[in-house]
Amino acid sequence: MVRILGVDPGSRITGYGIVDAEGARLRLVAAGCVTTAARHFPARLKAIYDGILEVVETWRPEVVAVEQVFMHKNADSALKLGQARGAAICAGLARSLPVHEYATRQVKQAVVGRGGADKQQVQYMVKLLLNFRGELALDASDALAVALCHAHYQQTRQRLAVSER
Amino acid sequence: MVRILGVDPGSRITGYGIVDAEGARLRLVAAGCVTTAARHFPARLKAIYDGILEVVETWRPEVVAVEQVFMHKNADSALKLGQARGAAICAGLARSLPVHEYATRQVKQAVVGRGGADKQQVQYMVKLLLNFRGELALDASDALAVALCHAHYQQTRQRLAVSER
Repeated sequence: MVRILGVDPGSRITGYGIVDAEGARLRLVAAGCVTTAARHFPARLKAIYDGILEVVETWRPEVVAVEQVFMHKNADSALKLGQARGAAICAGLARSLPVHEYATRQVKQAVVGRGGADKQQVQYMVKLLLNFRGELALDASDALAVALCHAHYQQTRQRLAVSER
Repeated sequence: MVRILGVDPGSRITGYGIVDAEGARLRLVAAGCVTTAARHFPARLKAIYDGILEVVETWRPEVVAVEQVFMHKNADSALKLGQARGAAICAGLARSLPVHEYATRQVKQAVVGRGGADKQQVQYMVKLLLNFRGELALDASDALAVALCHAHYQQTRQRLAVSER
């Protein structure tokens, strides 16, 4: 069994989701958002860093999965997103967790089976895969999707390792 | 006396500089660079985070000063720089240090007296102000410049506070 923390960083809202994966068996442990409206940018980074660190210390995941971001139209928002992403990743690094990155298409492909799926479709499949019927913020379901993507790739890697023996 | 850590973050080279400031008296304590050539991006962030954390734990600064970055032509490099910046700032936040941001023009104005000064002029003035004759990497002198800028603004704030009594 491995406990995976998926993170969807943003400069205002950072989604997180914790999933336990045991082979193909998946279980939702926790999901939510760290939000910050601080005007002072370092205070925002602190809210993200502290928030994700608290998630790490509460739920003790063994690995962090985060979406890789390529290409952004606006350089200013890319800079802000980058800082938020750096802060979220560092909260995992601070507790010596390995961090894995997955491209958006990989995440959608793993969860929905189609690289071009939209956020609603991702959320629908996340709920279905985790057998969860409650309300889920889009940022939280995006974070869970990355965690599920990691579970999927990990299982594939294990299968390959077994067949190579 | 206050010990200031100035940081100049970059995704490959992050400069740092430690300055002790006592009123107008300035002293160079340490300066250098954290470099990383890791191909895996989270490993780069880890090198920056761990490197700056080591500087913090070795030299025990009381405050962190970092250059504010506005406007970047290329969104992809802005995203990388943002993450590096987030990692460097988090290393300070992890030890509960206050983080101050200064615009590039403020830094150049404080150190050279001219907002449009180039890197060489900044380095020349940094060496002069700190009475340092050795070799200094440009990233390290940029980091020292931000630390000196913080010392300058802090002194101004203290003078204003005294005159208001």
